[in-house]
Amino acid sequence: MTDQATPTAETPAAAAPIIAGETLAAEALAGAWNPTPWPTRAPEPLEGEELQRVNAWWRAANYLSIGQIYLLDNPLLKEPLSRNDIKPRLLGHWGTTPGLNFIYAHLNRIIQQREQATLYVTGPGHGGPGMVANAYLDGTYSEVYSPIGQNEEGMKRLFRQFSFPGGIPSHDSPETPGSIHEGGELGYSLSHAYGAAFDNPNLLVACVIGDGEAETGPLATSWHSNKFLDAAQDGVVLPILHLNGYKIANPTVLARIPEDELLDLMRGYGHNPHIVSGGFDDEDPLLVHQRMAETLDEVLNEIAEIKRQAAAGTLEGTARWPMIILRTPKGWTCPKEIDGLPVENTWRAHQVPLANARDTEAHTRILEDWLKKYKPEELFDENGAPIEFITQLAPRGELRMSATPFANGGLLRRELDLPDFRDYGVEVASPGASDDSATKVLGDWLADVITQNPDNFRIFGPDETASNRLQGVYKSTEKQWNSAIWPIDEHLARAGRVMEVLSEHQCEGWLEGYLLTGRHGIFNCYEAFIHIIDSMANQHAKWLKVSRTIPWRRSISSLNYLLSSHVWRQDHNGFSHQDPGFIDHMVNKKADVVRVYLPVDANTLLSTYDHCLRSVDYINVVVAGKQPAPNWLTMQEAVAHCTRGLGIWPWAGTEVQGEEPDVVLACAGDVPALETLAAAALLREHLPNLKVRVVNVIDLMRLESATEHPHGLADDEFDTIFTTTKPVVFAYHGYPSLIHRLTYRRTGHNNLHVRGYKEEGTTTTPFDMVMLNDLDRYHLVMDVIDRVPGLAIVAAGLRQEMQDARMRARAYTRERGEDIPVVANWSWSRSNGVGVSQESSTADDTGGDNS
Amino acid sequence: MTDQATPTAETPAAAAPIIAGETLAAEALAGAWNPTPWPTRAPEPLEGEELQRVNAWWRAANYLSIGQIYLLDNPLLKEPLSRNDIKPRLLGHWGTTPGLNFIYAHLNRIIQQREQATLYVTGPGHGGPGMVANAYLDGTYSEVYSPIGQNEEGMKRLFRQFSFPGGIPSHDSPETPGSIHEGGELGYSLSHAYGAAFDNPNLLVACVIGDGEAETGPLATSWHSNKFLDAAQDGVVLPILHLNGYKIANPTVLARIPEDELLDLMRGYGHNPHIVSGGFDDEDPLLVHQRMAETLDEVLNEIAEIKRQAAAGTLEGTARWPMIILRTPKGWTCPKEIDGLPVENTWRAHQVPLANARDTEAHTRILEDWLKKYKPEELFDENGAPIEFITQLAPRGELRMSATPFANGGLLRRELDLPDFRDYGVEVASPGASDDSATKVLGDWLADVITQNPDNFRIFGPDETASNRLQGVYKSTEKQWNSAIWPIDEHLARAGRVMEVLSEHQCEGWLEGYLLTGRHGIFNCYEAFIHIIDSMANQHAKWLKVSRTIPWRRSISSLNYLLSSHVWRQDHNGFSHQDPGFIDHMVNKKADVVRVYLPVDANTLLSTYDHCLRSVDYINVVVAGKQPAPNWLTMQEAVAHCTRGLGIWPWAGTEVQGEEPDVVLACAGDVPALETLAAAALLREHLPNLKVRVVNVIDLMRLESATEHPHGLADDEFDTIFTTTKPVVFAYHGYPSLIHRLTYRRTGHNNLHVRGYKEEGTTTTPFDMVMLNDLDRYHLVMDVIDRVPGLAIVAAGLRQEMQDARMRARAYTRERGEDIPVVANWSWSRSNGVGVSQESSTADDTGGDNS
Repeated sequence: MTDQATPTAETPAAAAPIIAGETLAAEALAGAWNPTPWPTRAPEPLEGEELQRVNAWWRAANYLSIGQIYLLDNPLLKEPLSRNDIKPRLLGHWGTTPGLNFIYAHLNRIIQQREQATLYVTGPGHGGPGMVANAYLDGTYSEVYSPIGQNEEGMKRLFRQFSFPGGIPSHDSPETPGSIHEGGELGYSLSHAYGAAFDNPNLLVACVIGDGEAETGPLATSWHSNKFLDAAQDGVVLPILHLNGYKIANPTVLARIPEDELLDLMRGYGHNPHIVSGGFDDEDPLLVHQRMAETLDEVLNEIAEIKRQAAAGTLEGTARWPMIILRTPKGWTCPKEIDGLPVENTWRAHQVPLANARDTEAHTRILEDWLKKYKPEELFDENGAPIEFITQLAPRGELRMSATPFANGGLLRRELDLPDFRDYGVEVASPGASDDSATKVLGDWLADVITQNPDNFRIFGPDETASNRLQGVYKSTEKQWNSAIWPIDEHLARAGRVMEVLSEHQCEGWLEGYLLTGRHGIFNCYEAFIHIIDSMANQHAKWLKVSRTIPWRRSISSLNYLLSSHVWRQDHNGFSHQDPGFIDHMVNKKADVVRVYLPVDANTLLSTYDHCLRSVDYINVVVAGKQPAPNWLTMQEAVAHCTRGLGIWPWAGTEVQGEEPDVVLACAGDVPALETLAAAALLREHLPNLKVRVVNVIDLMRLESATEHPHGLADDEFDTIFTTTKPVVFAYHGYPSLIHRLTYRRTGHNNLHVRGYKEEGTTTTPFDMVMLNDLDRYHLVMDVIDRVPGLAIVAAGLRQEMQDARMRARAYTRERGEDIPVVANWSWSRSNGVGVSQESSTADDTGGDNS
Repeated sequence: MTDQATPTAETPAAAAPIIAGETLAAEALAGAWNPTPWPTRAPEPLEGEELQRVNAWWRAANYLSIGQIYLLDNPLLKEPLSRNDIKPRLLGHWGTTPGLNFIYAHLNRIIQQREQATLYVTGPGHGGPGMVANAYLDGTYSEVYSPIGQNEEGMKRLFRQFSFPGGIPSHDSPETPGSIHEGGELGYSLSHAYGAAFDNPNLLVACVIGDGEAETGPLATSWHSNKFLDAAQDGVVLPILHLNGYKIANPTVLARIPEDELLDLMRGYGHNPHIVSGGFDDEDPLLVHQRMAETLDEVLNEIAEIKRQAAAGTLEGTARWPMIILRTPKGWTCPKEIDGLPVENTWRAHQVPLANARDTEAHTRILEDWLKKYKPEELFDENGAPIEFITQLAPRGELRMSATPFANGGLLRRELDLPDFRDYGVEVASPGASDDSATKVLGDWLADVITQNPDNFRIFGPDETASNRLQGVYKSTEKQWNSAIWPIDEHLARAGRVMEVLSEHQCEGWLEGYLLTGRHGIFNCYEAFIHIIDSMANQHAKWLKVSRTIPWRRSISSLNYLLSSHVWRQDHNGFSHQDPGFIDHMVNKKADVVRVYLPVDANTLLSTYDHCLRSVDYINVVVAGKQPAPNWLTMQEAVAHCTRGLGIWPWAGTEVQGEEPDVVLACAGDVPALETLAAAALLREHLPNLKVRVVNVIDLMRLESATEHPHGLADDEFDTIFTTTKPVVFAYHGYPSLIHRLTYRRTGHNNLHVRGYKEEGTTTTPFDMVMLNDLDRYHLVMDVIDRVPGLAIVAAGLRQEMQDARMRARAYTRERGEDIPVVANWSWSRSNGVGVSQESSTADDTGGDNS
């Protein structure tokens, strides 16, 4: 392309194009990224030229930001600004942008001085034009988007594309070089920053927190992340709380509380706060630059000292990391007043301060004056390239924050070295002959995953890892905890692979940051409470969807959920802990991003999770029980079944080779599978001539049409398995409507009768719970009788027997507080052949403790 | 019933049964609840008898709590404890319970002394046995559940029912007298507490925050609620941070940071912290009682002084409210060690400290010894009633925290005095002849709702009330803000009806607390970000569902969402701000709780909201646009249409009286309605003989079968409107699958073709957005051509024309950055008759600024 940037030897940015970044990325992996990590330097107030350089960068970035918001053409203002140069729809956010640009310029100086690998996380992601402007000054933008060269035509395109149909979003996004953090929903910057810092000992993550974002819950608690960071093993997060005073229409809380209260708050969070304030009442920005430079020098020295102590093993207690409170005017440097109303340093500067720039000649002149205030002719040469005096502030190659491989984690990602999960499987002599806790078995495998991948795999959970029966991992690791450790504590250590904090937001945010910087992980959580991060999962799914379309973004590890303590076994907790709707929520996302698995026992869970940990760019939702439950499949069968994703279990049914069955009993999920098999056993005993097919679904998306989801089963295969004419009684883990939805385009979908979770369930015993939701074996048998043509009359007696058995079970549970022995002690192998006519005889047995 | 409690004159609890509580409730409404509000008293260390009484209450509550967790029988231990007295499945949580009981006992003393109306909110809601125990000692439990009398049989039933099939949940729940806060998901206690305190100037809300809960994001930010409470107009929240040190399996963050850091944190939150610590290393509880009593006296005096200043108008700045840090052992008073492992004061005391009480005789003895340590024979009389010495600590009647009408808000609820919404409607000379912002029109009505209901209606929003165009409300009120107010600020005041903080969690929590204590409100929010509170809405829906089954719980106002800035108009923001899935999420909840409305213009929004504000016990989800958009219905038509919930728009179609149409164009949502009408106009012009019916759906649940949802349309009515055989092209606001799901049982459901939001949308102009998602008018016309039998050949030319028009529109937008004039300037009235053949001629027009 003619307009591609022509890098010269003088453009440091040109030295190491990001796409070919494997060399430096490899350095980073080898821990050799930073040749002199965490050096201490005497504070150096900016000398004349350096001061001017930082300020010139800032002016240029501000100019480029405003240009993006406003201009279609005339990017260098070589002509008088005319109405037609201005976009017809003015969209974007100026308010936070000059602050983001200010910090970026200063970090550049520090990075150059200290050769400090740095990732820049900007909480106010709606300051998108700023991040783009800095990446453009860095040279990175032109490297990854060749039509946007460092010249007049490139600048015009840069401006035009911003928040324009077919262009780039107005927020930070996957399209933004240097970003791992999308603008949109606020609250996760600091969690993302910590996630990025874990296991990157030489990385500085500078994290700007907007004072609006600071009001959100997730951000408010993420300050405490510092108790979970190991100063020796992990990198450093430098929080920069940017108080520009206003949100969309209100002042912010933290900008209006007394300064001593704010300092108390930051000390209460365990930080050593430094305040930089200025730019108000026309104060010369050069003075503010001096303050910021001096503070950054001090702060980096404090960090170096902590790192030194940590390396020497002399650090005691939780490190008191520094943080910066930066107080500058909202929309700094925009017009003070427009149409008689104050704008700079008010909420009116939040989006587009001058919204009517096209409306009158006078308003067009205001915009022109504003742009000219930055003196573009001093910042860009005749061709439109930023002058060398400015670009000299850009660090070399991948030290540029816009080009750091840490913001394109796929460059740094190493595949996991996974132990063979088959070696961890349970013996299954015959289906249902033994019980195991699926997650406990998984935990033993994960222990060795950790051993073999000691620095790029972590498990996150809200204080539930042991509750979810993954305690096997403590054979090979500890929980990372950098607050006080007492002798009574178990499995706490300054460094470890398990991250537990009672905040699903933190767990999700840390994991996202960890994955986006090229590592691997699992989030284990109670199923019902994963809804807490619905909107975060949304945003991550959107990030993955868009990233797939960006050639320079490399694949990152999938985000793996392990949802245990699921809705069917909340014996300790009840109704308030039940909601299987996270699956529904995720299925609304793009099909190429989301996978849902419902393993049915220990071996299928192992096989599923091995698959998940090898995958990239997905969100894998895995729901699995933690209670001891029957093992159905040998490892070999489990692998085959998981590979198919769904399949017939011939051993469970009574169909005749070569004939269509009379009815299909389908199931997805461990509890539904158990009830389905119990129903199949009842049918085998009582209606031995009924041809029953049993189908289990592990990979839920197999149900959807192949045209809708990459995992979708071809229609003819689906028809072969489910038949097109026979009744299908489907027992499902979650809300029944999802099964209808997924099978909507299937030929036989009108034959489906789905039982699932019905939002009924204050009880404490497993079978009482399934009865409350009508998912029990007796109901399934009745469903078959009601749906197989002709059976209603033939099997009227059995139907009544099922009703009676159900009422007996109900009465027993309510009397004794535990499940009736015929259910609690039921097993496939015993019922199969032996029969279930013990039903009535054992109903009055006492004992049978299954707790 | 024979086992009903027999209240005696000595039982103060018996004086005022909660069910007949209207008298005192009326007192509370009249502000006369507390005859001597906020008195100051000299601190009085507990005298001998009072000290013993507080301690005896605490012992009794602890005994009753343990009894609930463990015992099936032998409640008073009159016989040696045997294995069969113990429940077969031990479920529940002891760890937090002694702390909750301790606080309850001390609050009783304060309430008696000061006649202080008090609501007790317990963040650790899994301490359910404690709340039940206290309500039982109060007498309230026996009043509302007559079979659970204050006698031996009643106590046995009390124990047995706890966390037992058919009994009560193990957490605080709607079944718990005195609770507005369900145990389950953690994080919302303080938000609920503040919601309860707003507009209840004489109410003290004592809010226990567990140190586990304190790690959640929502809790971490809710400390800042104190900046939003007006000391004069509102009640008082007393946060009691209960540090018992451990979660399920870990220490807690706030219990392990240095104490000076913790104090800094609380001061940073704007509080004056008081520490009470004790009970460790066998310390005599009597000493801790003394400390707590003295501290509570001080704290109440501080509160009284702030209230005095506020009443006198001399309070400056934000009130520095006191708070208490209470540090006691987890599981306080349970066995120190079991089976060689420390239990008391460790995480092992979290749930059931002695899980194997039935397993061996020795373990059964441990339980017996533990229970006997409280000396039940000193606490309960021969008949099993708590002795008068203890019950004298219970405040009178509704001053009992378990009996306060503030925890059964329906008792206090007054209906809103609503101005006639018809007077606020817009004139509609003909459909689409004028444009209005629906939410702006609503705002004008809400302004007068506020004027007429100055003390029991509030609007909550995350800094988006003006952005959502409800700024009309500022004609009659302000935003409540008790931090610094500067001259530049607009619409901020110490007291006001609009509550804005940038935390959806806080908005939701405040509103829930406000509604649960008998008031009314609206939560206005960007549609995409309402997912942030998915799980909170879940829990509230569960609360409402269960409350309906509890006779003594009175109806509360519905929780009303107004979701604006919806997914189709995120011009400023784009893809990251788009997700219409909250509707799907809510539809998973019980049908008798959830309502979803998609008003189509200003008049239908007014009518809908009037309905919502009059309703009780629902969650109403209303989605409405804020951008100027066509008005379709006169007020009279709007009322009729909203009453029906869905209906044919005869003026929009071309059907012939008495004949079935050839095709149905259905729509739900404002943007889909616009595109549908534009498609209808195109069809009218180009295929004038095609009989098109246009149907609009306002009340989404009308689509569901009458058997599934109370709003469901009868099948024959549905068939009449949608036909059973004709193609239905349905344009929907959200994910298309929901329409399929709701109509799944309808005869003609296979004829439905739904277009909706497809998770595609980085763009900045309205029509480009609908095109990206294939919801545009041209697509709808093509859908009709493809689906009406025989039309494909006849209308092949028109189909091509639609394709071309679409491509022209796309190209124009990408070139000019705004929508093509033929679309941007389209109006029903102009197209209707005038025709749309201007299409091609105007495609190249310049101008037409629609921004």
